[in-house]
Amino acid sequence: MNQQELIIKITLDAWNAQISRTNKLLAELTDEQLSKQVAPGRNSGVYLIGHLAAVHDGMLPLLGAGEKLYPSLEAVFLTNPDKSDLSKPSTTDLRYYWNNVNNKLAEYFAGLNPDQWLQKHNAVSAEDFAKEPHRNKLNVLLSRTNHLSNHLGQLIFLKK
Amino acid sequence: MNQQELIIKITLDAWNAQISRTNKLLAELTDEQLSKQVAPGRNSGVYLIGHLAAVHDGMLPLLGAGEKLYPSLEAVFLTNPDKSDLSKPSTTDLRYYWNNVNNKLAEYFAGLNPDQWLQKHNAVSAEDFAKEPHRNKLNVLLSRTNHLSNHLGQLIFLKK
Repeated sequence: MNQQELIIKITLDAWNAQISRTNKLLAELTDEQLSKQVAPGRNSGVYLIGHLAAVHDGMLPLLGAGEKLYPSLEAVFLTNPDKSDLSKPSTTDLRYYWNNVNNKLAEYFAGLNPDQWLQKHNAVSAEDFAKEPHRNKLNVLLSRTNHLSNHLGQLIFLKK
Repeated sequence: MNQQELIIKITLDAWNAQISRTNKLLAELTDEQLSKQVAPGRNSGVYLIGHLAAVHDGMLPLLGAGEKLYPSLEAVFLTNPDKSDLSKPSTTDLRYYWNNVNNKLAEYFAGLNPDQWLQKHNAVSAEDFAKEPHRNKLNVLLSRTNHLSNHLGQLIFLKK
């Protein structure tokens, strides 16, 4: 393993560690617990899981891994707040979407070689990327790992 | 900039982004707000800042950047919970420690070249490191970035 491969492995390990921690927590939380707000007046567990699933689903087109699996999540969990009038999928379905999106990402990640990780993501033009080579796929992975950590720190409050 | 340098830049940028977000939040929060629990029955803002300062202080010896600046933080904010009998530093002091530790880390990071980032950290033996080369300084940075994101997601609840 060369140094670049090593660094990419470390970054992917960090992503996988946060996904695993989230899955372990979700396995411990009942649907009833997930329906509660994580803190008074804050988002519910259901909203946060939908939000995370929507954000991870958006990584598929952003990284060039294909179309979104569940495009309808965007309106409910990204562009509108928890207290919108939009009806939410069942918690059973959300748990399924969450796993499915992450599995699809894992499959895509497994097929990327180190150079491909440093290719541009799809929200940057080729022209801008030439000047800003840090706007690559690995950067998306890092930023989404921190996003997940951020909300995981909140979801943990649903535990007794 | 070669690919390895680019990846290290991205990882450092992610760390710096979380530090900046935290500093921005801390600038907005009064000492009074920081004295509150982030959610009912959970850690106070003061405890979390002390905890983060203690963990970042511990990065100094772990990375070979020198001794801890504030070793007394460990007992108060790492090995004992918020509700221990140990007296806590003033919030003014904690804000200062937090900044000072991060500035010391930033100074150290600025002097590391890409190969040094991939050298072992000080909690792994040379023998184990030969078999597990991912246990390096960059990995510490990644893991502490996620740790910070995790608690930042909680501190934000102190905002009105």
